[in-house]
Amino acid sequence: MLNRVRSAVAHLVSSGGAPPPRPKSPDLPNSTSAPPAAPPQAPRSPPARAGSGSAAPAKTVEARASFSRPTFLQLSPGGLRRADDHAGRAVQSPPDTGRRLPWSTGYAEVINAGKSRHNEDQACCEVVYVEGRRSVSGAPREPSQGQGLCFYYWGLFDGHAGGRAAEMASRLLHRHIREQLKDLVEILQDPSPPPLCLPSTPGAPGSSDSSHLVGPQSCWSSQKEVTHESLVVGAIENAFQLMDEQMARERRGHQVEGGCCALVVVYLLGKVAIIVRNGEIIPMSREFTPETERQRLQTLGFLKPELLGGEFTHLEFPRRVQPKELGQRMLYRDQNMTGWAYKKIELEDLRFPLVCGEGKKARMMATIGVTRGLGDHNLRVCSSTLPIKPFLSSFPEVRVYDLTQYEHCPDDVLVLGTDGLWDVTSDCEVAATVDRVLSAYEPNDPSRYTALAQALVLGARGTPRDRGWRLPNNKLGSGDDISVFVIPLGGPGSYS
Amino acid sequence: MLNRVRSAVAHLVSSGGAPPPRPKSPDLPNSTSAPPAAPPQAPRSPPARAGSGSAAPAKTVEARASFSRPTFLQLSPGGLRRADDHAGRAVQSPPDTGRRLPWSTGYAEVINAGKSRHNEDQACCEVVYVEGRRSVSGAPREPSQGQGLCFYYWGLFDGHAGGRAAEMASRLLHRHIREQLKDLVEILQDPSPPPLCLPSTPGAPGSSDSSHLVGPQSCWSSQKEVTHESLVVGAIENAFQLMDEQMARERRGHQVEGGCCALVVVYLLGKVAIIVRNGEIIPMSREFTPETERQRLQTLGFLKPELLGGEFTHLEFPRRVQPKELGQRMLYRDQNMTGWAYKKIELEDLRFPLVCGEGKKARMMATIGVTRGLGDHNLRVCSSTLPIKPFLSSFPEVRVYDLTQYEHCPDDVLVLGTDGLWDVTSDCEVAATVDRVLSAYEPNDPSRYTALAQALVLGARGTPRDRGWRLPNNKLGSGDDISVFVIPLGGPGSYS
Repeated sequence: MLNRVRSAVAHLVSSGGAPPPRPKSPDLPNSTSAPPAAPPQAPRSPPARAGSGSAAPAKTVEARASFSRPTFLQLSPGGLRRADDHAGRAVQSPPDTGRRLPWSTGYAEVINAGKSRHNEDQACCEVVYVEGRRSVSGAPREPSQGQGLCFYYWGLFDGHAGGRAAEMASRLLHRHIREQLKDLVEILQDPSPPPLCLPSTPGAPGSSDSSHLVGPQSCWSSQKEVTHESLVVGAIENAFQLMDEQMARERRGHQVEGGCCALVVVYLLGKVAIIVRNGEIIPMSREFTPETERQRLQTLGFLKPELLGGEFTHLEFPRRVQPKELGQRMLYRDQNMTGWAYKKIELEDLRFPLVCGEGKKARMMATIGVTRGLGDHNLRVCSSTLPIKPFLSSFPEVRVYDLTQYEHCPDDVLVLGTDGLWDVTSDCEVAATVDRVLSAYEPNDPSRYTALAQALVLGARGTPRDRGWRLPNNKLGSGDDISVFVIPLGGPGSYS
Repeated sequence: MLNRVRSAVAHLVSSGGAPPPRPKSPDLPNSTSAPPAAPPQAPRSPPARAGSGSAAPAKTVEARASFSRPTFLQLSPGGLRRADDHAGRAVQSPPDTGRRLPWSTGYAEVINAGKSRHNEDQACCEVVYVEGRRSVSGAPREPSQGQGLCFYYWGLFDGHAGGRAAEMASRLLHRHIREQLKDLVEILQDPSPPPLCLPSTPGAPGSSDSSHLVGPQSCWSSQKEVTHESLVVGAIENAFQLMDEQMARERRGHQVEGGCCALVVVYLLGKVAIIVRNGEIIPMSREFTPETERQRLQTLGFLKPELLGGEFTHLEFPRRVQPKELGQRMLYRDQNMTGWAYKKIELEDLRFPLVCGEGKKARMMATIGVTRGLGDHNLRVCSSTLPIKPFLSSFPEVRVYDLTQYEHCPDDVLVLGTDGLWDVTSDCEVAATVDRVLSAYEPNDPSRYTALAQALVLGARGTPRDRGWRLPNNKLGSGDDISVFVIPLGGPGSYS
């Protein structure tokens, strides 16, 4: 029996020198001829309970030129100004009077204490309808036939060096996921194993006959079995890559300078795929930092030394090596080692280490503290032309949690939060707040999840006192943007 | 409370194109001027309870020319012939009358059923004394001063394509570990944190003054803390690399054609460092196969495509792609993906996949089923000149188990076995045999561990019946070489 699932922002970004080959779909949402920031195609009609999503297509051009918050907050111009006020730091939630978010999801956010001009977090909560690319009969299917798939989607995006990357990802990432799922609509609804091959020209009526599908029965006996679940995981993995590639292509039009970390939940056919940060209570995620990804970064630097530009060494030392230590033997570790050993210091060991520092101060190439994310295509090492991007990977980690495997009660929630929450709040403190707030409401009161999201944001923000935002224990609250989704896990049955 | 620890052969071998920088010690056991197979220097006097080790230095030249078994078996020429008999497959254990192995370790082995001319497993059980490279006073210390360190060592080596690599590793790997530990003798016995730097010329009296040690107190505050434990892990990691490099240099003299997997236990200062294969009961290890190491192999092939020689693709497909499938979209996954997706088949996808097959049939470069190991420096892809070695890594995985953290009873054992054991015996079956055999003996009877090792070997071998070696359930027993160590964990206190 699951009690609570907690998770948070995943740190994402492109592995390796050259980009890996990616499947190209003809109607991918990344055409360069589309107007900047405009979604690649008109959104499909969501089903009856569609969530109030992020900006609609018509608003994107306007949004580009000004500060925006998630449309499900339904902020008036005056409300938008209040949400943008660093002094008051008013907590924002969707209005009680509006349509609830899917699953009665709770949401709350607050702007930072002056760290950046605007709130660099963004959020998206959507019900997304996926129409199959073709029907078995070869004729395009009408959406009204109800043969498509629906997925529920929650995304938190924690921007850095500006909010544009987070904004772009919040508008488009779920559309990339939808595009990737289009090929799978029929396959996922068919209990037989996925076909090994699809016809070469997707959508072309002539090639969509199911007899063109090369089923596993026609293959060698040594064929690997591929599950439906792994197809959804692959679709999400590719969607992240394509989102990042679109940011690279269109960054000028979108004025995307910085990047963002992304934390996404996809609910599809009874399973939740979570791209997340580590949580103790039920670990659904892990952090991607220069420390946790040390060996991946060192391996890339070792195999592709040209990416280090003669400025960095892929070896790690406990601290920066000093010229006077040349010839001494110092502790080090390379890309293979988990332990430490001594090596004689040579000239090239005086280069700056690819990975250095500990905890919150850990840095990659002396520049950035996250190692996965979307965007940052212009990011260079400080006072250098060396790009960070090949080390910063846009590849997500996807974990699958089967919601049907447990009977969830109304107090079972998935808490998604940005750094602003987790920097000052432990897993146990979150669990205590969940207990305290939910028990003050009737189990069937849908507003309890918004109240919980608000309590978590307030608890991380604190109150203004002694020249700062302080928590009840007098420690400093988070001066960062704070955004929290509370997703009740007991509810999905009625939506699936 | 630990009940039982099970582990088995680790699959090991050199990451990446060029070898990583390694510390060079002046008296490393790999001088090319030494006679082949001779240990690099005379063994140190072991302490009183020294185990009967593998071949002594004087015997190595003779051993090179003929079949050999671990010297602790004390086999006479006639006994050696019986141990080499594929028809009888007599189980071999150290004689009751001789000195016991350290910790009353049990050992048993049996030759294969005709798979190879000789038994390609090798074993080593040693007490190794490590003399510090220098004393604090600058004068070389006498071993009799008792200021050195002792470690207990068990190694199983599972050879392939000949037994020479296993034989060489069984004679020399623990000496490489000793060499790597020499720098650490003083450091490990000093409770203060390890020094960041050592003097530049180890062993030189003039530089061994402790004032030359750059302690952490003199360093920046941002210095990373390095534990004693991680120094031992680093020493073991480097020892494996150096063992593999020695095999590369001296393979002609030692007639080393094939390679071997290695499973090693080191007991030092209360902790056991285990380089191992996965076990369910208390997982101390994992297997290194083309399946478990898929992403490492694909990443190397992606970043260094020249290592694939235009013959292989780093992409994985559920089965080999056929020319007629060109232009179709087939399931694939790349080095980043854990899920699967469809991609359009292009000409280069028709190359053989770097990783293919499942389970026991999984192969790397269509050639070998293990992805880590020592040796194999001559191994090429079948009917090609492409070397396997950069993909086959000699790097071990080291896990540390603190023996002092639990109060072990006499029934708590660590079972090390080669593939011959684990191919036909599940974790649970091993646990049941442990229960059955140990309960038939008094807890203080030291022969119970040898009896257990014999029972495990017999249980995996079976008895000759119906034209084969069969288990009681009539399934086929293992036709492979089978070697088993049973290490009682309740004993070490009296030896440490």
